[in-house]
Amino acid sequence: MERPAFNVNQTHPASSGSPAAFPFDNAQQQPTAKPVEVLASSPDSLRQHSYQGVASGLRSEESTRVPSERPLVDVMAGASRIEKKVLDHGFIALVDVMPRLVPEGQTADQAIVQAARVSYGDGTKKVNEDRGLIRYLLRHRHTTPLEMVELKFHVAMPIFIARQWIRHRTANVNEYSARYSMVRDRFYRPSLEAVRKQSKANRQGGDDTFSTTDAQDIETANDFLAYLEEVEKAYGKYVGLTERGVSRELARMGLPVSVYTEWYWKCDLHNTLRFLSLRLDPHAQLEIRAYAQAMHDLIAGIVPLTMEAWRDYDYESMHLTRLEIEAIRSGAAQIESENSREQAEWQAKREKLGLA
Amino acid sequence: MERPAFNVNQTHPASSGSPAAFPFDNAQQQPTAKPVEVLASSPDSLRQHSYQGVASGLRSEESTRVPSERPLVDVMAGASRIEKKVLDHGFIALVDVMPRLVPEGQTADQAIVQAARVSYGDGTKKVNEDRGLIRYLLRHRHTTPLEMVELKFHVAMPIFIARQWIRHRTANVNEYSARYSMVRDRFYRPSLEAVRKQSKANRQGGDDTFSTTDAQDIETANDFLAYLEEVEKAYGKYVGLTERGVSRELARMGLPVSVYTEWYWKCDLHNTLRFLSLRLDPHAQLEIRAYAQAMHDLIAGIVPLTMEAWRDYDYESMHLTRLEIEAIRSGAAQIESENSREQAEWQAKREKLGLA
Amino acid sequence: MERPAFNVNQTHPASSGSPAAFPFDNAQQQPTAKPVEVLASSPDSLRQHSYQGVASGLRSEESTRVPSERPLVDVMAGASRIEKKVLDHGFIALVDVMPRLVPEGQTADQAIVQAARVSYGDGTKKVNEDRGLIRYLLRHRHTTPLEMVELKFHVAMPIFIARQWIRHRTANVNEYSARYSMVRDRFYRPSLEAVRKQSKANRQGGDDTFSTTDAQDIETANDFLAYLEEVEKAYGKYVGLTERGVSRELARMGLPVSVYTEWYWKCDLHNTLRFLSLRLDPHAQLEIRAYAQAMHDLIAGIVPLTMEAWRDYDYESMHLTRLEIEAIRSGAAQIESENSREQAEWQAKREKLGLA
Amino acid sequence: MERPAFNVNQTHPASSGSPAAFPFDNAQQQPTAKPVEVLASSPDSLRQHSYQGVASGLRSEESTRVPSERPLVDVMAGASRIEKKVLDHGFIALVDVMPRLVPEGQTADQAIVQAARVSYGDGTKKVNEDRGLIRYLLRHRHTTPLEMVELKFHVAMPIFIARQWIRHRTANVNEYSARYSMVRDRFYRPSLEAVRKQSKANRQGGDDTFSTTDAQDIETANDFLAYLEEVEKAYGKYVGLTERGVSRELARMGLPVSVYTEWYWKCDLHNTLRFLSLRLDPHAQLEIRAYAQAMHDLIAGIVPLTMEAWRDYDYESMHLTRLEIEAIRSGAAQIESENSREQAEWQAKREKLGLA
Repeated sequence: MERPAFNVNQTHPASSGSPAAFPFDNAQQQPTAKPVEVLASSPDSLRQHSYQGVASGLRSEESTRVPSERPLVDVMAGASRIEKKVLDHGFIALVDVMPRLVPEGQTADQAIVQAARVSYGDGTKKVNEDRGLIRYLLRHRHTTPLEMVELKFHVAMPIFIARQWIRHRTANVNEYSARYSMVRDRFYRPSLEAVRKQSKANRQGGDDTFSTTDAQDIETANDFLAYLEEVEKAYGKYVGLTERGVSRELARMGLPVSVYTEWYWKCDLHNTLRFLSLRLDPHAQLEIRAYAQAMHDLIAGIVPLTMEAWRDYDYESMHLTRLEIEAIRSGAAQIESENSREQAEWQAKREKLGLA
Repeated sequence: MERPAFNVNQTHPASSGSPAAFPFDNAQQQPTAKPVEVLASSPDSLRQHSYQGVASGLRSEESTRVPSERPLVDVMAGASRIEKKVLDHGFIALVDVMPRLVPEGQTADQAIVQAARVSYGDGTKKVNEDRGLIRYLLRHRHTTPLEMVELKFHVAMPIFIARQWIRHRTANVNEYSARYSMVRDRFYRPSLEAVRKQSKANRQGGDDTFSTTDAQDIETANDFLAYLEEVEKAYGKYVGLTERGVSRELARMGLPVSVYTEWYWKCDLHNTLRFLSLRLDPHAQLEIRAYAQAMHDLIAGIVPLTMEAWRDYDYESMHLTRLEIEAIRSGAAQIESENSREQAEWQAKREKLGLA
Repeated sequence: MERPAFNVNQTHPASSGSPAAFPFDNAQQQPTAKPVEVLASSPDSLRQHSYQGVASGLRSEESTRVPSERPLVDVMAGASRIEKKVLDHGFIALVDVMPRLVPEGQTADQAIVQAARVSYGDGTKKVNEDRGLIRYLLRHRHTTPLEMVELKFHVAMPIFIARQWIRHRTANVNEYSARYSMVRDRFYRPSLEAVRKQSKANRQGGDDTFSTTDAQDIETANDFLAYLEEVEKAYGKYVGLTERGVSRELARMGLPVSVYTEWYWKCDLHNTLRFLSLRLDPHAQLEIRAYAQAMHDLIAGIVPLTMEAWRDYDYESMHLTRLEIEAIRSGAAQIESENSREQAEWQAKREKLGLA
Repeated sequence: MERPAFNVNQTHPASSGSPAAFPFDNAQQQPTAKPVEVLASSPDSLRQHSYQGVASGLRSEESTRVPSERPLVDVMAGASRIEKKVLDHGFIALVDVMPRLVPEGQTADQAIVQAARVSYGDGTKKVNEDRGLIRYLLRHRHTTPLEMVELKFHVAMPIFIARQWIRHRTANVNEYSARYSMVRDRFYRPSLEAVRKQSKANRQGGDDTFSTTDAQDIETANDFLAYLEEVEKAYGKYVGLTERGVSRELARMGLPVSVYTEWYWKCDLHNTLRFLSLRLDPHAQLEIRAYAQAMHDLIAGIVPLTMEAWRDYDYESMHLTRLEIEAIRSGAAQIESENSREQAEWQAKREKLGLA
């Protein structure tokens, strides 16, 4: 059998992304959009001047540079950061995206399509199918292509929020160190109207606030704020003690968990969507939901096709258990469970489905 | 205590990277280097047209876009891929980097410095210290800032190499699927001169080749190549059987592990350097070392400061055991071990240190 | 406020597991069940004889050993392995579990309950609630307590299956090395009746087999098996070439991906359940589904409460998209989508729900 | 070629661990050591009573139980936990190990040997080589077999320590939740003699304490303790506010990072050793070093062969950079670097090697 010479260009089924596949009227949306000029730094020339490489006994072939077929545009439109304020002193800023540069007329969704097509092969390479392919991936939980998009955020948040956030392990994090540097004077203190009551039904907390007309409620909320103000006074002592020589790593021990810290947080899109699903959930603490909402809004335009599919197939989706499927089939009002909480969960879904 | 208003700009100690910190004469190296024009796609405008967002009950604040203070340049200089051929039909191509755009006069090393400075605070923010900071990080194995750089490669390699490669778990991978698509007709077959003997000393293999003058050696090497040619004939049958309706997922079962597959492989720089350290090692199989060498050469100019430090503190470093430290202290020719292999390892180090 | 002395025993809310919480009649099931005698090796005494510890300048306090309140039993009942044959020459064996020893009358589910209770606190510590708690965790995707159970398997499977399996990254793996050792003479070859056709609807493959009465089908299936038999002949050449000195790492290159390899695979229960959900799915290749089924059956009795909940809330559950929820609400026969595949998926769910 | 029937027992090269390979005189050490009786719960019988399994269309083969060839012993000798106090109110307790049961005369090191031998094949299966094999693995950083041992700890530690600890991502964690449950009244407060000064040389902190004779030093240290005592008063307000209905998740915001939390932390041995290497380092904060020391001491007798090798090849080893290797070769007193910190690091190593 004759074996054809290997042609690099044939092997990149995803490289010929097509403008027709893009569902937006760019002309109308982006009057200022121009391609990026990319006559930029040449890595190879840099290299000669400093780093001599390694002597491994092997030599690699010469590089071939394949210029982009279409002009490239910056998905962050030249910004070094796109930032939203969150809570009283916090923020979340998108500071980088992979892919940062995409062919004109596309979005960062393009990297997902490119990766999916290496898996699913040439048959899927039809024009006009990018959106359909992404929706297919999300609907069927084929999540690995989503990992080909990487997002980097700079975040300032209170320590008690940072402690919830860090539980998402599949991310890269560099946090401000209170061992090396002085903690800055920023503490989270909600407004009077936003002080929340312990829910009776929900052991986690809940979103109900104290009444702003009931005198006893007002007093409790005020006492709570006074308590926070009081503990914030530790900051002055913290500064004073470090000035008198106490090590920073010990002195910070008296600061409350309402104090702000900050970090760079870098995560792939699949795990970012998991973060959003868990942290936009009404059971998540309100403060972290505020960060999740801002994160969502920051990336909505970066990967719009993915976010649309995520809403349809994940965020606004519903999970039916085996017992609930059987109740729908049989038309039963109740599921076969003696667990009252599970029964209540079913009733909520039943109403949402219009079956009650 | 009065609390100063939070000033976003004060919190980004790393953002004021300085040209003076850059050890290269860019004018000379990059006659064509020009800043990137970034009047590109506006995510917010895109968003209105498709994705309506989620109704979480929370609203995020308006975004603030901070334009880059200095012109941005593309670290890949406008290429959509930078590719090197490896083995007979394989390749490795760098297809994206985070950061892709960096301030003029910098390299992708800049993202490491930026992240390290959020940890170590303002004291490190001096001009001219980028290289020193990166070298400090590498020397002391402070590896988390290295995770802030992300690299994406497109690779074609034989299956037996892919199986070694995939053991590096901290990476994102999308592989060509032989269930969905027909395997392509590419098999690895070394040249006659490159057929290697089993080492007697080294159970892993070794780099010694058969003699090209000894008749018996030539015959063995030729028989080996004939064996490979023979098994490659399975390809024709594979194609024929699928044409007669056998499922692709079964038909591919008869293809040898020398057949090529391909994937996108995305990995942070820290874990990429671990890959290089392990796979450039003389104990690694020669074929994967060839990929590692090409990978190294592809990124050498992308993060030159890091690669220089990696060579000095990792690749060309040496590890001394407790027993070896004691032998140097006492001037003993041998370490206190009855293990002959360990003793031999010590002798090799001793020679390299000029102590033998 | 007086601070009570810290009492270790108060801090272990989960330690008082109760026999009443266990839904099985053990007396009837386990006529031979006896507590384990655990007068076993004393780590502290071992230590004096060899390992001198480290000189860190810190000393740890003396250890306190808390004997188990109830007799401990081995969840593997004294077996060193519990094995099932899979395919023609493969197997999967459960070789260890954490927890291996549990209080009499409990199962390995107990470690999940113990961990969940440290999170959710004392209020959940009521008798008779273990099953309810585990079902709550599974229903609400609170998966971290499931990570407290660890499972270790020894598996022999063809390479093309190993390549699918290894994509589950959150596991520890030690595989037989064809660089160090000779590959053993085991190849997967299905029976004539089991040779599968390429599905027209399903690009992945499908489960339809060739007819065993149609002459042309029989011929195709026979030709497929002959093709496999042919490629297996490479084994003899492989052995011969290594005997003539060709390195093992090269010689194995001609072996087909139907050859068996084996490994130890260690994974926590959460990620094992993810493996099962994905690999028991009808879209998974039949061969890996056979391993998943055997893995499922091996652990069904080790963590029976969890597996029961997993079936009810995951394996036999259904996911409804936003579009499908709206169709159920409005009673529409079709969802609002022009995607025919998505429409077909909806019709399948509709039938399963008895709404068609 | 005739294909021999697959014999399960031939495939487990590591199963025939030998007493002779064990370097300890067990008779002398363990006068009470007796095998464990393992006539325990039968998973299969349990299963019939509750969980019906899944209907996947596949059936797995019957199980074969292979009883252990040698009596099994519990590496924790019947303890449900082995605990050490750390700091004033903290603790770390070993609560489970995989493998928990090992053949009589062995330690949990056995699981490492078993896994390594599946990789390296039959040739390594000689008697008396267990220790040598483990030492080889550690010396050559072949770390995957170490991942076959899993350790589970229950820990109580101050929040500022928990925040350092959680950065080790490759672990499973279940933490006490201050959203669900009331925080307990435990705060870390060092003794007067243990209050540490900020080091001038070391930006991280350092171990120098305030003088206990200098009046000004005593006053500073006392003021620091008074500051901690003051912030601990927030606890009473925290309790009071929750009693008046403020949600627990908000009320805890005023508690300082010196308050204790607790968690279960489960980690494989490879990553546990990484934790020890990083957290026993003199640059780690003293408080986390105390936990690391206790963790080390708890596992020293569980995996004594590994810990001995870890000390020789990791903890008490030394890393030489390319520059330092060259200095030793040439006999130069200084390395070729203008970085004064790097120069100082070299001088410290030079002294330790007896070359100064």
